[in-house]
Amino acid sequence: MFDYQLIRTEGAARAGLLHLPHGLVETPAFMPVGTLGAVRGLHPGEVDRAGAQIILGNTYHLHLRPGEDVIRQLGGLHRFTTWSKPMLTDSGGFQVFSLETLRKISEQGVEFTSHVDGGARFLSPEKAMEIQWALGADIAMAFDHVVPGGAARELAEEGMERSLRWLERSRTAHQAVADPSRQTLWPIVQGGTFADLRRRSLTGTLNLGDWTGTAIGGLSVGEPKPVMHRILEELEPDLPRGRPRYLMGVGFPEDLVEGIARGVDLFDCVAATRNGRHGSAWTMTGRVNIRKATNRTAEGPLDPTCDCETCARFSRGYLRHLFAAEEMLGLRLVSLHNIRFLVRIGEQARAAILDGRFASWRQDWLERYTRGDDG
Amino acid sequence: MFDYQLIRTEGAARAGLLHLPHGLVETPAFMPVGTLGAVRGLHPGEVDRAGAQIILGNTYHLHLRPGEDVIRQLGGLHRFTTWSKPMLTDSGGFQVFSLETLRKISEQGVEFTSHVDGGARFLSPEKAMEIQWALGADIAMAFDHVVPGGAARELAEEGMERSLRWLERSRTAHQAVADPSRQTLWPIVQGGTFADLRRRSLTGTLNLGDWTGTAIGGLSVGEPKPVMHRILEELEPDLPRGRPRYLMGVGFPEDLVEGIARGVDLFDCVAATRNGRHGSAWTMTGRVNIRKATNRTAEGPLDPTCDCETCARFSRGYLRHLFAAEEMLGLRLVSLHNIRFLVRIGEQARAAILDGRFASWRQDWLERYTRGDDG
Repeated sequence: MFDYQLIRTEGAARAGLLHLPHGLVETPAFMPVGTLGAVRGLHPGEVDRAGAQIILGNTYHLHLRPGEDVIRQLGGLHRFTTWSKPMLTDSGGFQVFSLETLRKISEQGVEFTSHVDGGARFLSPEKAMEIQWALGADIAMAFDHVVPGGAARELAEEGMERSLRWLERSRTAHQAVADPSRQTLWPIVQGGTFADLRRRSLTGTLNLGDWTGTAIGGLSVGEPKPVMHRILEELEPDLPRGRPRYLMGVGFPEDLVEGIARGVDLFDCVAATRNGRHGSAWTMTGRVNIRKATNRTAEGPLDPTCDCETCARFSRGYLRHLFAAEEMLGLRLVSLHNIRFLVRIGEQARAAILDGRFASWRQDWLERYTRGDDG
Repeated sequence: MFDYQLIRTEGAARAGLLHLPHGLVETPAFMPVGTLGAVRGLHPGEVDRAGAQIILGNTYHLHLRPGEDVIRQLGGLHRFTTWSKPMLTDSGGFQVFSLETLRKISEQGVEFTSHVDGGARFLSPEKAMEIQWALGADIAMAFDHVVPGGAARELAEEGMERSLRWLERSRTAHQAVADPSRQTLWPIVQGGTFADLRRRSLTGTLNLGDWTGTAIGGLSVGEPKPVMHRILEELEPDLPRGRPRYLMGVGFPEDLVEGIARGVDLFDCVAATRNGRHGSAWTMTGRVNIRKATNRTAEGPLDPTCDCETCARFSRGYLRHLFAAEEMLGLRLVSLHNIRFLVRIGEQARAAILDGRFASWRQDWLERYTRGDDG
């Protein structure tokens, strides 16, 4: 269990197969984010039919609503949401450090204010492991100290060092509460935009155990894209080859293609549904704003090359009308399309890697995608 | 085409089969309301799987957004929305008289203000027929003068008489624009709560033509339920036996059962989705407010006797969480359940009528339903 088979590589790009208690994940793969126990606006059956093999749940949000006790009583997050395939939960670290609910950081943990009821709450490595085990995802994430995107070296170093200390506590706590055949724990490499800090974080992480996967956190938080690419390139040779690599909170379609090229296996991001809710759709020839007047009487689908349920059935004209009329179905249909678009990038990249034509696929894809953006 | 076969009756209750260009409708039947080209929050595939055989489109709303020209260019309302089964459009009369956008009524028609852009608009029998033919539903409705629920006799009489004059103009206009093999026109009986006005309206209506169906409008607009029941009972013997009867804007579950008992074949109402959006679900043992704390860890479905996609898959605890967290999926799942609930009343009543056990079914149903209401 939790094994990863590396099937084929092309350059740094990898095609693999991850074995999890709730099923297999063919990598590279995009993981839709089920923030509050649902991928925003979507039915788990739709997410499944869109080809998602694994989804993410947010520990922070689920801890506040409905609370892990309710979810445990209702059989865990899988049974609660009726999603039967693999699932990963984040640790809540990203939210408590980024949602402006932060009150006090200490070595013990983080005191924060619930954005729901204003009450004081506390998260620590121990608490985060307890909650994640109650949720019962296949993969739990270590509780880390996340620093802002443009953090100065001193703060980035402090966060990275604390994340290492908290990783050790996360591991101990996880071993104490979780059944290791049903849930594994992945560490998160931090260190901001500083190559040496990133290297120290990775070394320190690998010294703490033989992890079943490695996550890279604290990227795509405002730094220029070339900086993210450079960090991935610097880390890649030292990441365990026989384990999956997960780039947290990334990303947009081009980020997936560029991340896969740099050896990343797993991605997650809310952009698919967030953009979808605003009528922004990704297509093979770039971004489409469905609200534009040019779509008023457009008979064709969002993307004629797309095989999603939205493109198979609905015209751009209808989708535009749904957005203009503020009919909920519109948000849902474009969100679903965007989810499928990212899932399909994983599928297409994987097929290309297996065929030894990833480099040309990547070049073609980026050319087509960046050419047509209609803003 | 547009034939109605009366298959069996029990008292005033009728089981029939209505032949429409886009398919058959087994009556009695509930028609979900697709206000803006979508049943609020639902996918046409879901509405179809919920057993709906015919849905309604709102001429007023579709005229304002996206406009009948856009819909015509995109192939008509069926192709636009991808709903391939029968469809009925109202005439817009109800909305212009009830949405507080009214500006001026004359014999010619109604000037009103668009609630979308504030612009002045005009609807008349001729305009309403033109729009409805552009939309292309199987059944178009006459443009009528709707008066408020508690209207005094004088106003009710004025509206009823004008509706008769407008019916004649609706018929002439419909004959001029529509292909009679693809769309039929139904008249609407008005007359407020006054038995003699209702009778005069029905007589005047039937004198104007051999209609393929008869609608009863201006009920369920605030009058006590016994008043609605009395009017239905008074009209029933004089309604054409060989034509379907449509009680407009009705209703709630008990209204369907009582309407069927009084010879009604078709119903429509937004309550299923409106209540669904607020977490109010109908079940065989009464209404359930899913937001209630008692549902927090409830493992069972909304209604253990229901065969809808929501009840087949999701727990009350999960649904409650979705509402508490304001996750859109919740509105959708409860709306879908409510639609199925009303569709199923039609199915169950029909089966009972065909078996000659409608009277006992009705009594059992009402007893069970009114006993358990949890508010």
